[in-house]
Amino acid sequence: MTPWPAALPGDTVDRIDTPALVLDLEMFERNLQRMADAVKNTGVRLRPHAKSHKCPEIALRQIALGAVGICCQKVSEAAPFVAAGITDILITNQVVGARKIDRLMDLATDAKIGVLVDHARQVEELAAAASTSGIALDVYIEVDVGAGRSGVPPGRDAVALASLIASRSPLRFAGLHCYHGSAQHMRSPQERRQAIASAAAMAQATKAEIESAGITVEVITGAGTGTLVHERDSGVYNELQPGSYIFMDRDYADNQRGDGDIAFEHALFVKTTVMSRPAPSRAVVDAGLKASSVDSGMPVVWGRSDVRYLKASDEHGVLATDDAASPALGDQLMLVPGHCDPTVNLYDHLVCVRNGVVEALWPVAARGAVL
Amino acid sequence: MTPWPAALPGDTVDRIDTPALVLDLEMFERNLQRMADAVKNTGVRLRPHAKSHKCPEIALRQIALGAVGICCQKVSEAAPFVAAGITDILITNQVVGARKIDRLMDLATDAKIGVLVDHARQVEELAAAASTSGIALDVYIEVDVGAGRSGVPPGRDAVALASLIASRSPLRFAGLHCYHGSAQHMRSPQERRQAIASAAAMAQATKAEIESAGITVEVITGAGTGTLVHERDSGVYNELQPGSYIFMDRDYADNQRGDGDIAFEHALFVKTTVMSRPAPSRAVVDAGLKASSVDSGMPVVWGRSDVRYLKASDEHGVLATDDAASPALGDQLMLVPGHCDPTVNLYDHLVCVRNGVVEALWPVAARGAVL
Repeated sequence: MTPWPAALPGDTVDRIDTPALVLDLEMFERNLQRMADAVKNTGVRLRPHAKSHKCPEIALRQIALGAVGICCQKVSEAAPFVAAGITDILITNQVVGARKIDRLMDLATDAKIGVLVDHARQVEELAAAASTSGIALDVYIEVDVGAGRSGVPPGRDAVALASLIASRSPLRFAGLHCYHGSAQHMRSPQERRQAIASAAAMAQATKAEIESAGITVEVITGAGTGTLVHERDSGVYNELQPGSYIFMDRDYADNQRGDGDIAFEHALFVKTTVMSRPAPSRAVVDAGLKASSVDSGMPVVWGRSDVRYLKASDEHGVLATDDAASPALGDQLMLVPGHCDPTVNLYDHLVCVRNGVVEALWPVAARGAVL
Repeated sequence: MTPWPAALPGDTVDRIDTPALVLDLEMFERNLQRMADAVKNTGVRLRPHAKSHKCPEIALRQIALGAVGICCQKVSEAAPFVAAGITDILITNQVVGARKIDRLMDLATDAKIGVLVDHARQVEELAAAASTSGIALDVYIEVDVGAGRSGVPPGRDAVALASLIASRSPLRFAGLHCYHGSAQHMRSPQERRQAIASAAAMAQATKAEIESAGITVEVITGAGTGTLVHERDSGVYNELQPGSYIFMDRDYADNQRGDGDIAFEHALFVKTTVMSRPAPSRAVVDAGLKASSVDSGMPVVWGRSDVRYLKASDEHGVLATDDAASPALGDQLMLVPGHCDPTVNLYDHLVCVRNGVVEALWPVAARGAVL
């Protein structure tokens, strides 16, 4: 745990110690509203992914604006959201191992929990635990619609798995999880549109095969911030799972925006201080890779095209500067992280700012919840 | 915070929930002893870097085996070590900003604290705070001996800064910080030896210049796990700061070992479970980039040359496998992280194992302490 907070409510932004994870509430609230508007009257449900924020304060605001529930990526990640009173959570992952399944069943006593499978053995293990406890679980089949990660291929493997789930009360076959992860950061709008058209066709065909076996496919769920307008408009997907739209990050900003794409704003920043100015073209800031995750590349310096973040070590960031005098030693800068999800996971709090003043600290309650 | 621990003392290794950060105590203790032996009777002090482990339990064991104190990289990182009774800490970084300097002075009431400077303004700010509180601080000049990050150039800039520090009681000029970070992962032993020979020559020349101005240079401190034998044998450095040697990681294992290099062992692992087996040559594990930092490349699968960790997303790791049947769904594997420091920073606990049984959970007390 960090031994003291970066700021307290009432502090002005310049008083926030660095590095700190800063959420601009006005930009954040506009992003929330844009997403709510984007699904309004479409018949498509919004189930935002909480792996991006890990913060019940944010999930409650998403639900207040119409989200049906949330997604989590791990069983332990779901726990603080259940504790905060959220009652509908889809764990968008396989859950394997006796200890994990026990915890999953514990959560399912307090909330409606969904989970993915892509193998009969997972179904049998879930069925055994659900049968012992008498608790229903919503089970979704993960279908590989192009991401090449987990999931059964489209078609008959999914039919067999759906039949198995349907036969294993109190498990309930809820639908298909058809998330195309690798499409999210395809840079051109055409590539993203084609990838989702292909994914939707596979999802649709798989649904048809399962339904011709007499099993209803209620939900087809998927989509991320990069592609969600295509899933929304597909006529196939009826639930969307975007996570990053509330924050945005450099990697999403690198996507070229297509017609109809929603103009989400950067709302999440890592505030940093220049702690060394060793050469005319080099500045060193106090936010390194333990302050801004570099798995998807370096952060960018917000509003400063004359300054480039070149490389990160644990607690140093090396910047190239055009001006030998600016930024100066002690100057404060805002970084836009390369990837918001693992960056948020480095912090205990979001420092929430409005009109230049800290309004609240929101706990990143599921930080480190990898189990 | 993780809502429940991955294991409890007394659990067998196969019962540890995944992903979990596992420390093999026998390998760890051998690494501790090898390092203690490597400096014994050399007159060179060991001040291990705590940014790698962030764990007072480990620092206390390093000190029990002869370390003079520890290094930390941030002011807030030092706090839990001071709370644990460690009384000699060098913060190997510039400390810039009023709030940070206030916290630094608070720590210095309970421990001997050292800090780096590379600019006169930093000296003046530290001097003002130290003068107000009447508390001594050890101030080291960071000299850029080849890393190209922070630090003054060797030579006269350092002389001017040493004179300034010496004139600003209660600041105490303690010596030169001459860490060559970029030499640590040069792959060939020759490159590493040459880089440190060059660094030592610059450190020596700078020391001579300062001493000819009548100011004693007591300590020349630096070195990391990749190069420490060269600093130790240089006749110039009299203090070493290695951090990763207790754990080792894939990036250090990729260094070719030279004559005289110490054979530290991998002691730190991320235990993971195969949660999906979607194709004959593909397995998916539950440890992604939130479980094993990928800033220095992918982890490797311990003891399994037939399995390669190809890519990571937040909570998934994709493995390429030679054998369609192994590892099977549900199998547990051990990963060696690409970079130990940011990986440890993802967890609340080290799960410490001896002879296949969990002996203790050690808190990663300074996790997330970036301020």
